[in-house]
Amino acid sequence: MRAHFTIAWSALILATAACQSAAPAAPSEQAPAQIEVVLRAQESAWNAGDIEGFMSAGYWNSPDLTFLSGGDWTRGYDAVLERQRASYVLGDKEMGDLVFSRLEIIVLGADVALARGHWHLTFSGDDTASGLFSLVLRRLPEGWRIVHDHTSLDSKGQV
Amino acid sequence: MRAHFTIAWSALILATAACQSAAPAAPSEQAPAQIEVVLRAQESAWNAGDIEGFMSAGYWNSPDLTFLSGGDWTRGYDAVLERQRASYVLGDKEMGDLVFSRLEIIVLGADVALARGHWHLTFSGDDTASGLFSLVLRRLPEGWRIVHDHTSLDSKGQV
Repeated sequence: MRAHFTIAWSALILATAACQSAAPAAPSEQAPAQIEVVLRAQESAWNAGDIEGFMSAGYWNSPDLTFLSGGDWTRGYDAVLERQRASYVLGDKEMGDLVFSRLEIIVLGADVALARGHWHLTFSGDDTASGLFSLVLRRLPEGWRIVHDHTSLDSKGQV
Repeated sequence: MRAHFTIAWSALILATAACQSAAPAAPSEQAPAQIEVVLRAQESAWNAGDIEGFMSAGYWNSPDLTFLSGGDWTRGYDAVLERQRASYVLGDKEMGDLVFSRLEIIVLGADVALARGHWHLTFSGDDTASGLFSLVLRRLPEGWRIVHDHTSLDSKGQV
């Protein structure tokens, strides 16, 4: 009988090893730092006047990217880029200087996270705009990317 | 040798079964329907004037619940309840009639989902308020609950 148990034991160990390697990885401890790098790259691109770089550094390049802001529901990478251009580039508009602060990154799974924080823009003549953002990010082959963005303005009525 | 393989095969089947039952369930096909039930229960509680029921039906009862709206960053179930009371109950305020629409529920993992949509309140005298919401939900022992809410008003400036 001893040989039987040896074979059975070997099969059990092999199956257990296969099971463990197939199990999903634990949420990465590196995810918050990786996501902060993405958001700081967006900030840098914005402050270099590079709106395409701001978009590509952070946003999922997909027709399913969704951006909610000011009552507008914008769907698709190209439409979000056009909205940003219309708000901050076209005509006599300016992009201003962008700072993200109060950043909190919550890992929700191995490949999904929530990032929330405060944004602040300073324009020429000391005009400013600011508010809060909530971002849902997924880890894609190209890295962590925002798949959903809800951005709102400070002090525009209480809900 | 036949008996050896029978024992090995049995061990393999047992180990595989154990592995499958230990693996996380695939994102539930029922999750969107389950989450919609939660949000409709919130709507019903609101429209019955039951602000505590609105909160308990949908929100994570935790000091880490986070609610972003109108530039305010509110943390904790009790603080969110107090904010809702201050906005819709205290003094001469009224809760109005709430309708959620344009609901989209995106399952992000076995136990995490994003819900987004439009909210509309009608008050006496035909006053209205409306806007968009983004909710991050987790499946907890008590059911799906909102762990993060970003709610904004329509037409209050473009970001």
